[in-house]
Amino acid sequence: MDDFVFQNPTRIYFGKSHETEVGRIASQYGRRVLVHFGGQSAERSGLLPLIRKELAGAGLAYFELGGVQPNPRLSLVYRGIELCRENKIDLILAVGGGSAIDSAKAIAAGVPYSGDVWDFYTGRAAPEKALPIGTVLTIPAAGSESSPGSVITKEEGLLKRAVNADCLFPRFSILNPERATTLPSAQVANGVTDIMCHLMERYFTNSRPVEFTDRLIEATLRTVIASAPRVLANPTSYDDWAELMWAGTIAHNNLLNTGREGDWASHDIEHELSALYDIAHGAGLAIVTPAWMKYALKHDVARFAQYAVRVWGAEDNYFDPERVAREGIARLEAFWRSVGQKVRLSEIGIDDSRFTEMARKCTDGDTHSVGHFVPLHSKDIEAIYRLAL
Amino acid sequence: MDDFVFQNPTRIYFGKSHETEVGRIASQYGRRVLVHFGGQSAERSGLLPLIRKELAGAGLAYFELGGVQPNPRLSLVYRGIELCRENKIDLILAVGGGSAIDSAKAIAAGVPYSGDVWDFYTGRAAPEKALPIGTVLTIPAAGSESSPGSVITKEEGLLKRAVNADCLFPRFSILNPERATTLPSAQVANGVTDIMCHLMERYFTNSRPVEFTDRLIEATLRTVIASAPRVLANPTSYDDWAELMWAGTIAHNNLLNTGREGDWASHDIEHELSALYDIAHGAGLAIVTPAWMKYALKHDVARFAQYAVRVWGAEDNYFDPERVAREGIARLEAFWRSVGQKVRLSEIGIDDSRFTEMARKCTDGDTHSVGHFVPLHSKDIEAIYRLAL
Repeated sequence: MDDFVFQNPTRIYFGKSHETEVGRIASQYGRRVLVHFGGQSAERSGLLPLIRKELAGAGLAYFELGGVQPNPRLSLVYRGIELCRENKIDLILAVGGGSAIDSAKAIAAGVPYSGDVWDFYTGRAAPEKALPIGTVLTIPAAGSESSPGSVITKEEGLLKRAVNADCLFPRFSILNPERATTLPSAQVANGVTDIMCHLMERYFTNSRPVEFTDRLIEATLRTVIASAPRVLANPTSYDDWAELMWAGTIAHNNLLNTGREGDWASHDIEHELSALYDIAHGAGLAIVTPAWMKYALKHDVARFAQYAVRVWGAEDNYFDPERVAREGIARLEAFWRSVGQKVRLSEIGIDDSRFTEMARKCTDGDTHSVGHFVPLHSKDIEAIYRLAL
Repeated sequence: MDDFVFQNPTRIYFGKSHETEVGRIASQYGRRVLVHFGGQSAERSGLLPLIRKELAGAGLAYFELGGVQPNPRLSLVYRGIELCRENKIDLILAVGGGSAIDSAKAIAAGVPYSGDVWDFYTGRAAPEKALPIGTVLTIPAAGSESSPGSVITKEEGLLKRAVNADCLFPRFSILNPERATTLPSAQVANGVTDIMCHLMERYFTNSRPVEFTDRLIEATLRTVIASAPRVLANPTSYDDWAELMWAGTIAHNNLLNTGREGDWASHDIEHELSALYDIAHGAGLAIVTPAWMKYALKHDVARFAQYAVRVWGAEDNYFDPERVAREGIARLEAFWRSVGQKVRLSEIGIDDSRFTEMARKCTDGDTHSVGHFVPLHSKDIEAIYRLAL
């Protein structure tokens, strides 16, 4: 097990009963709140009206900035930073999924920073302080509600980049599984895929032994694999949504990578896809991850075989572990198809014409590798895009 | 899944490399530190000398209070409170296992309280503030290094009582698995038993469905069951100690009871044993828990059968789930025997002469029941003691 430091300070309010406490909870962090959200779904569902009422009821002044898109954009972050400065905002309350939360984190880090907030995403600077962030989660997927990470897309050059910093942990997150029951099935599938990839990026590691966290990750994957088909078949099932939503948070709150180094190449390779073609992150991951697995399999057949047996219930075969390992990848693809994902680029109309460009962007012109389990250079990434065709 | 609020603020420093940072870390919480510990083992191992050197090196003033016993006593807590007040202590640093940490928590809560600190343990008052607590853990067992709980024994009347409060979470805990490698095997067995019971107390619940946390608990139990025989066979194995130590912390940091209500009757029933006979908590649990299981089994045979299959690898038998359930209890007893525990009262020389007295104390004279899975009155508790003979 690798040495580590672990702390996750986010306070989680889980269940049906906490939304009406949002005013009281928010009031612990100040008097002036920016409510940050995406489109009209939170308005239509009654969630935004409820939040306005509760914030006002707690005597808080609130301002609003909607319009966050999937793959949240830097231009809106800039607007948010200005808005916060003009209105002396104390707390940013993100309402929605990972996009709203990641955008809120970027704004929160940008407000006290004198330079360009994009510096944090290029690695030119590291966020050391940020406005407090709270979230009201509506989509189990990104795990951003209890993570220190944020991913933002810069329109110019279509650059999608991530930052991680302790000051970006939300102070609190309100998770009501009922809010997920109206999600379109494609969004459910994308969320499920993202959660599973957060787990698998952590699972494929060179750190060893890591038996405990292996088992925790397997437990979380099995929960997602069990609950996802149930919420798709029965979208109003609170109990199944609760399992999925909590698993989605734990998948990405850093507990499951204690003592181990994750890979994260699939995320980086996917970010180029979703930046260039503006597809959903989860849809991209369902295509990239199996291809990455086929490329990385020989690096540690035993790990892929263990994954196949423990996560997917594949039969042991110690005489031919590679066969077991490949069975695991096949079952993953079959599962993702079963929840409605495409698992090949050709199925979503993407050809090989920009593979070289994406592979070079992913490695900043081959100036560095991506991934830790198997460090990949641009030629490896091109090969993975080809395996995904 | 039940609604819940979850936050665990303790910052964990895990591995070989963090002990020498104790001065830097402690200095974040003040300038005057009380080092609180048990006997001479931390002195002999070189840990206390190292901590003194690092605290002094960081320019901190430190005071010392040793002498914490297993089943830590209220009288020492009173002395600690006085010592902290006299010396204007900013931070209590517990060095050792659960006893030192629980004692430190009691002192920390007592310092700012104008009444008798025992009030917190009888429920007459609830701790609302406490001095900051840090820990340097040497024994994987109690989980107190990342929990809000403390258990103290009042000598007068031999009352052993617990309190839980958010202000009792340690601010930081330094976990170096190397420190556990010199533990006597009996102490290892008691620690393993305590960890397993923290997991099983959470596992046996009436909340449902709780699939995700079921799986997380099973994963943690399997880790403990795999690593315990290895550390006993090979006490200097860092890797195995690391798995066991981290599992021991997660077992009791409240994550694994999110959305579910644990039972905790076995703990309460054991507390009477260790208070009266001054046996180790783990030794008492190894005797009480199987008896409790036999008594509670019929309340939810399916849950005991799932436990047997998933935790112990018992074979499924849907035609006779009670047989599967009993197999799980038998395997637990066999496992505890294999790590050196006794699993019957008669084996440690305790007879039935004080069962009635203990059962009445446990329920404060039958004024309340104990346990949530099956609420137990004094006659039930007496029956459980009898099953344990």
